[in-house]
Amino acid sequence: MNKQVIDLNADMGEGFGPWQIGDGDDRHIMPLISSANIATGFHAGDPATMASSVSLAKAHGVAVGAHPGYRDLVGFGRRSIQVSAQELVQDAVYQIGALQAFLQLEGMVMQHVKPHGALYMTLAADEALSLAFLQAVQGLSPQLEVYCMAGSATHQAAQALGVKAVGEFFADRDYDASGRIVFTRRMGRLSPAAVADKVMLACTEGLVDTVDGQRIPVDFDSICIHSDTPGALELIRTTRDRLLQAGITLRAQHERAVG
Amino acid sequence: MNKQVIDLNADMGEGFGPWQIGDGDDRHIMPLISSANIATGFHAGDPATMASSVSLAKAHGVAVGAHPGYRDLVGFGRRSIQVSAQELVQDAVYQIGALQAFLQLEGMVMQHVKPHGALYMTLAADEALSLAFLQAVQGLSPQLEVYCMAGSATHQAAQALGVKAVGEFFADRDYDASGRIVFTRRMGRLSPAAVADKVMLACTEGLVDTVDGQRIPVDFDSICIHSDTPGALELIRTTRDRLLQAGITLRAQHERAVG
Amino acid sequence: MNKQVIDLNADMGEGFGPWQIGDGDDRHIMPLISSANIATGFHAGDPATMASSVSLAKAHGVAVGAHPGYRDLVGFGRRSIQVSAQELVQDAVYQIGALQAFLQLEGMVMQHVKPHGALYMTLAADEALSLAFLQAVQGLSPQLEVYCMAGSATHQAAQALGVKAVGEFFADRDYDASGRIVFTRRMGRLSPAAVADKVMLACTEGLVDTVDGQRIPVDFDSICIHSDTPGALELIRTTRDRLLQAGITLRAQHERAVG
Amino acid sequence: MNKQVIDLNADMGEGFGPWQIGDGDDRHIMPLISSANIATGFHAGDPATMASSVSLAKAHGVAVGAHPGYRDLVGFGRRSIQVSAQELVQDAVYQIGALQAFLQLEGMVMQHVKPHGALYMTLAADEALSLAFLQAVQGLSPQLEVYCMAGSATHQAAQALGVKAVGEFFADRDYDASGRIVFTRRMGRLSPAAVADKVMLACTEGLVDTVDGQRIPVDFDSICIHSDTPGALELIRTTRDRLLQAGITLRAQHERAVG
Repeated sequence: MNKQVIDLNADMGEGFGPWQIGDGDDRHIMPLISSANIATGFHAGDPATMASSVSLAKAHGVAVGAHPGYRDLVGFGRRSIQVSAQELVQDAVYQIGALQAFLQLEGMVMQHVKPHGALYMTLAADEALSLAFLQAVQGLSPQLEVYCMAGSATHQAAQALGVKAVGEFFADRDYDASGRIVFTRRMGRLSPAAVADKVMLACTEGLVDTVDGQRIPVDFDSICIHSDTPGALELIRTTRDRLLQAGITLRAQHERAVG
Repeated sequence: MNKQVIDLNADMGEGFGPWQIGDGDDRHIMPLISSANIATGFHAGDPATMASSVSLAKAHGVAVGAHPGYRDLVGFGRRSIQVSAQELVQDAVYQIGALQAFLQLEGMVMQHVKPHGALYMTLAADEALSLAFLQAVQGLSPQLEVYCMAGSATHQAAQALGVKAVGEFFADRDYDASGRIVFTRRMGRLSPAAVADKVMLACTEGLVDTVDGQRIPVDFDSICIHSDTPGALELIRTTRDRLLQAGITLRAQHERAVG
Repeated sequence: MNKQVIDLNADMGEGFGPWQIGDGDDRHIMPLISSANIATGFHAGDPATMASSVSLAKAHGVAVGAHPGYRDLVGFGRRSIQVSAQELVQDAVYQIGALQAFLQLEGMVMQHVKPHGALYMTLAADEALSLAFLQAVQGLSPQLEVYCMAGSATHQAAQALGVKAVGEFFADRDYDASGRIVFTRRMGRLSPAAVADKVMLACTEGLVDTVDGQRIPVDFDSICIHSDTPGALELIRTTRDRLLQAGITLRAQHERAVG
Repeated sequence: MNKQVIDLNADMGEGFGPWQIGDGDDRHIMPLISSANIATGFHAGDPATMASSVSLAKAHGVAVGAHPGYRDLVGFGRRSIQVSAQELVQDAVYQIGALQAFLQLEGMVMQHVKPHGALYMTLAADEALSLAFLQAVQGLSPQLEVYCMAGSATHQAAQALGVKAVGEFFADRDYDASGRIVFTRRMGRLSPAAVADKVMLACTEGLVDTVDGQRIPVDFDSICIHSDTPGALELIRTTRDRLLQAGITLRAQHERAVG
């Protein structure tokens, strides 16, 4: 392991209308990350928010991905909806296209797609669904990458289709012994130092401590810290500082591909 | 006047979820028209409906335009919402982008944008708003045309920006002496023969009879018959037959440009 | 068995904004039924539609029930959403209260609650959820009845709480050998005579023929024919005529309780 | 003037799903006010939020009113929608009924109705609309009061119908020489001391200073401080303390009527 370069991603633009999410302002988080997953209107995000998120990402040289979710605003896309495979794909196509238009107006190209919340989990567990989803993504642009968990069905489907899969390490989530993250709906405030330690262990040794006291290997290309985690700004800032101090460069996926 | 070639447009995909609009099925109307304005989700239309409308248009060689509306599903976009200019433009960008994604998957290129209902009327009366709207449209693709009424503020804004404006003749609406159409929320059943007569008079002599008994000149490039007008299918079929019998060719705008 | 009096219920007001559902007009169906399940805005129905449905029910002496569904307009409430028990109950309370206001303005009292689509099925299979749901219903009014399937978890929960359960016979659905209905998302056109025969067999002998060729007992207090089943108006009319010809009276539940 | 008793109202429950509004938590504001206007789902508020807001109001002995708005979540009900009078009334009836159900479950009675945002302003300027609106309110419960501005069309309509009108003094808004408040979409942080001074002047002398340097009379029965005004919690706390120090009692309208 011992990574020299890593991507740091966060969800951006997850407000809706007058409402903001989390206690960290996007304007403070955006300068600290290398890739932004911008909400596309179904679980959060509205056209005005999307436009300003894209503009903010551009100003800070942050790569942009679409962050489509289930059509579930009140549930923030955290509740699974029993949609057909076709509906799931078409809902995502709609949302990705909508964000592409805002990128187009700023002269930007979409880097990736990262499904949100329950959609992320549904796809992670279903390879047929992931294949259908990724075929559509590929149809929209062959360069689009997909953010997912290493070893997930989405990751496998991406490999089968030749879609670049970017494995994620969830710095603000707990892992179990199987390498899966333990999703919790409400979570307490995390220690920035502990999160940064966890990220450093993962980046330098490729290991993570699990909730049941084991230390297991993890594989990833991008660190995710959720912007609606309480204290997100401080978690991101501290983690980023530690990475930079250790000589690790933050870089978006597509830049790495180029460099 | 005496047109040799004319475009015939109708609104398509204006259902939502399980609901269909009008008594004419899109599958019967699509083969009869040359341009389809596909609803993009805010006043009508959902991803599944958009996907099948695009696919249906492709099957029949019909050119596709985006038909964005106010975010007003229950009011079908017929109620004006006091949005800012920026919100209006961003809402349209979102919707146009969403439809572009479905066209992209079918290997099609969007021909035009036609605002829906109250948005069409708001833009028709406001040149500054039309300029902001059309600058965004142009930013999404310089080739995009805009459907509007000849002489409207939208038409003038299009000319100022170099956006191709396609003037519409509303075959199923009444005109007043000023050349404006008289919008009515509920309308009776129109006679197919009378509608076809009206279209023929407009196409061959460039004239239309007004509600107050005058006969005034009209200028247009496309005939619009609304698919939610009662008996729309028969109105479209009869009109189309009369045009073809008179040796007038139906053709989408972008084909005409090429031919 | 050999019922002298039976209730005939249908879903009413399942349009949304400009859209109507099914090919039967509510104005034609309402005079033929004794109980109407009025959609309450989450899967279908909007305030204007609810107001006119209530008014129509009043004009024809039809008893009214609330027909709450999942918050899933585009999916017509036919897709299960992974909500918490509390969310499920609160969503229903909101919808029931909204309909009560329209009844209040007409001087009417709500007769029953009938969950819609996927919510009906979710509750039918989960007694804890049904208990939570029915406790809230009871809290809103101790007189409220619940429409459900005989033998379902909802039926059992109602009995445990002392809520009057009205068992339903689905005239336009197929039964399997276990007495459960076989839900199909799209269905062909049914023969009105066959549906009426099926209802007569159920009313006079308490039996139903299953999809696998058996004849099993059924227990019920109300016949349901869905208004969005193709040809619903004719199914309802024919069934009703056969019932009346056989001397069976159509009557709403609450009238029966009184009479 | 020199009021002995005054009502202090604030908008509560104006979050939606995961989103909260303003920097003051409802749990901190509720104990400080005497009347709460609870959002009813169209511009803000969802069933879960409504249920917890009602429960919180009950715990603190705060009287509850319905706070219906235009169906405009993304615009927070601050954008006028060109609805018909009938649609406007039916949308309000739906929302009021929904909140009544949550009150019913808590054994509470609704005290008042206060239209939100653009709906408040539209009604304030249109007596025919206010009459239609208040007739429906009266039909839902003859005891319901309406919060409005003294001298507004809503106030006049209430008097014509015999609906109790509660005049409001907007402590966090500026007044012009005509006695109208100057609505601003974004506002800076107000000084708690200045707001409390303004309220004291209004309560003890019945006067308010206008933006153009005049001092004019004001008439009111309730002080409103918006919970989404930046620093709302401190504004409310400071104002309340000053009122109590001056021996003025905070009391909800309906208690005053009784006492």
